[in-house]
Amino acid sequence: MHAEIISIGDEIASGQLLDTNSQWLSQRLGELGIHVLYHATVGDEVAAGVAVFRQAIDRADVVVATGGLGPTADDLTREVLAQATGRGLVRDDEALAHIRRLFARRGWPMPEQNEVQAMLPGGSRLIPNPHGTAPGIAMDVPREGRSPCRLFVLPGVPAEMVEMWHETVAGALRQVGEGGRVIRHRLVKCFGAGESRIESMLPDLIRRGRIPRVGITASKTTIILRITAEGATEQECFAATEPTVATIRQCLGELVFGEGEIELEDVVVRLLGERRRTLAVAEWGTAGRVTHALRSAAGAEGRVLGGIAVADNQILERVLDVPPALVAKHSAASAEVAEAMAVGVRGRFGADYGLAVSRFPEFDEAQPKPVFFALATPEGVRAKSLPFASHPAILDIFCAKTALNLARLELSRAE
Amino acid sequence: MHAEIISIGDEIASGQLLDTNSQWLSQRLGELGIHVLYHATVGDEVAAGVAVFRQAIDRADVVVATGGLGPTADDLTREVLAQATGRGLVRDDEALAHIRRLFARRGWPMPEQNEVQAMLPGGSRLIPNPHGTAPGIAMDVPREGRSPCRLFVLPGVPAEMVEMWHETVAGALRQVGEGGRVIRHRLVKCFGAGESRIESMLPDLIRRGRIPRVGITASKTTIILRITAEGATEQECFAATEPTVATIRQCLGELVFGEGEIELEDVVVRLLGERRRTLAVAEWGTAGRVTHALRSAAGAEGRVLGGIAVADNQILERVLDVPPALVAKHSAASAEVAEAMAVGVRGRFGADYGLAVSRFPEFDEAQPKPVFFALATPEGVRAKSLPFASHPAILDIFCAKTALNLARLELSRAE
Repeated sequence: MHAEIISIGDEIASGQLLDTNSQWLSQRLGELGIHVLYHATVGDEVAAGVAVFRQAIDRADVVVATGGLGPTADDLTREVLAQATGRGLVRDDEALAHIRRLFARRGWPMPEQNEVQAMLPGGSRLIPNPHGTAPGIAMDVPREGRSPCRLFVLPGVPAEMVEMWHETVAGALRQVGEGGRVIRHRLVKCFGAGESRIESMLPDLIRRGRIPRVGITASKTTIILRITAEGATEQECFAATEPTVATIRQCLGELVFGEGEIELEDVVVRLLGERRRTLAVAEWGTAGRVTHALRSAAGAEGRVLGGIAVADNQILERVLDVPPALVAKHSAASAEVAEAMAVGVRGRFGADYGLAVSRFPEFDEAQPKPVFFALATPEGVRAKSLPFASHPAILDIFCAKTALNLARLELSRAE
Repeated sequence: MHAEIISIGDEIASGQLLDTNSQWLSQRLGELGIHVLYHATVGDEVAAGVAVFRQAIDRADVVVATGGLGPTADDLTREVLAQATGRGLVRDDEALAHIRRLFARRGWPMPEQNEVQAMLPGGSRLIPNPHGTAPGIAMDVPREGRSPCRLFVLPGVPAEMVEMWHETVAGALRQVGEGGRVIRHRLVKCFGAGESRIESMLPDLIRRGRIPRVGITASKTTIILRITAEGATEQECFAATEPTVATIRQCLGELVFGEGEIELEDVVVRLLGERRRTLAVAEWGTAGRVTHALRSAAGAEGRVLGGIAVADNQILERVLDVPPALVAKHSAASAEVAEAMAVGVRGRFGADYGLAVSRFPEFDEAQPKPVFFALATPEGVRAKSLPFASHPAILDIFCAKTALNLARLELSRAE
């Protein structure tokens, strides 16, 4: 069973508004075991809208559309739907009474043009909208030789759409999927190698037709493996993915840092909590990103004591106790200075660990300079340098994640 | 002339990833006067992808697609494109040489499977990808009795897609759109009052049918007024919106901090540059957000000297020279301590200005505690407190923006 999601409106097609409804609806349909294969967005033109609806009714068993149900002249979805399904528009008295009640409750007179919101295609059912004037529309559209297409149209306002989904559409579709299936995705997250290197470390998991299905994507230098299973229950899905997840973990070892919504900073903070240790950060050339990520993680209180972002040689001594002679001898971007920054911030904050990252802000693609990382621990200091040749737009994210990953690996090996 | 945007990938269709590329591309096409009527998203299935491309080639004059150009087994766009246009895949030596160079620059061996990224449909042209292994693909697809469809396929990674758009695709399409109409949006950005308060300060600009059209939205506590005009040229659009923008600026005064993509931190950094002043930041309870924002702004080098994020009473003296007696007397969350933090960070970094924000991390909705801000200047220190009762999810953004706004107002009034 395939589903399609349709977004209607010039503001989406022209890019003035970001369409977040389609993502949200895809997630909800997936949870009901209904696989979404297509999204379509169409501007406010009747003929184009009719073609998009006709195609969706033909190629998908479930269609959920949003937008174009308002009272104004550019709200064309009712007309589009009537033409696409060959029905006329009929006034729905229940819908009209609801709209009148809403205006009365707000103490406003109902503008005449709102009456158009009560016009629904013949043979459709109203989907109540508790907090808005636009009723939704549900229809089973007959298809020759096949089961009808289940069609739902909701307003584009996210808060109304979400409420109507939960109150009406989810229940109706749960029966469709009943005795039916659920789909679950598990995400295994990796850092420290590129997409193709990670794929080459795995057996042939990503081939088409394999069950469970495995996909791989890179998101801001984190590599995400997505394992998808279908089953009667959530538990069954989990069990179906477990051997694949175990294989991935075994092949990738320390490259895997977690599952699901977790990020590197969450792992570092969790490890600090488990080991009852504290950490402070010194950074140069990452715009304070490492401190910001760690302090934003849940559980950071009492574990991440703070951070110092510097952007000038002169400051190294005054805020981080880095001897000027060291900078003069090795230059500011050196393993020695990164080590001294880590030791300095550890001392200043009285933390168990001091994490430092230092990169030259002047990025020269032709001659990428190494970035230096250091971690001061109760046992001493470790430094690491990496020659970076990443995309300039994500270089500082990559550096920040590399620093977090250094702390993660060190902490996970510590007692 | 109509355009269509296609997004490819299960991660988009299933809702795991939010598609921001389609919005961005719609905006850029609109600026070139090319009206986007359709977006389509399709999962990783060859037959479905082929059908989506064939339809787009038929119904749109310009097609821009993103995604599925990676090296892994679920990257099917090359195959889909070859089938949709009836061409075979041919190795492109220039593409292969580029991919090899990229790996060499990073000092990694090139995995064999990356070779597949150099396979392009016959008759297509390569779109260079300066920072990634996936070359883009440009094709003019012949259509019977009509001009060919201009087709561009770019990687799904936003940073690569954006760069390739600017370097190659925009130039190619600028010629296509010539002689047409352009649509321009101007954004006027405000901070310091809510959406309805700002609307009430303006004359009746937001009514439907008014030209130019004015919309109002709140985005993370910044209020944005959007003024839209259409015309033959960019200059004509600008002139059409100018009186409305002037009215808004006059009515809102200092609440307006800028136009377009500008953020509060950009204004602060610009003012520091104009006045040849430097600034350092001390923050508590904002997760280092103020430092991160300021250091990420263009032009921050040499102007924003750095920042110190603290999360513990004990640290105040050691890293910010705040006397323990002051903390004992007034508590850490007090105007006095915020002032001492501002003075302390100004002294430590040797900066002209020290900006401090201090809030209790324990958020209690029933009894919102005030947040304290201070700015140490060459002339003395100013403090401000605000009782915050904002939504917890955006409270720290609101605090960080309030601190930046304090610096903006002070700097704009300074000589």
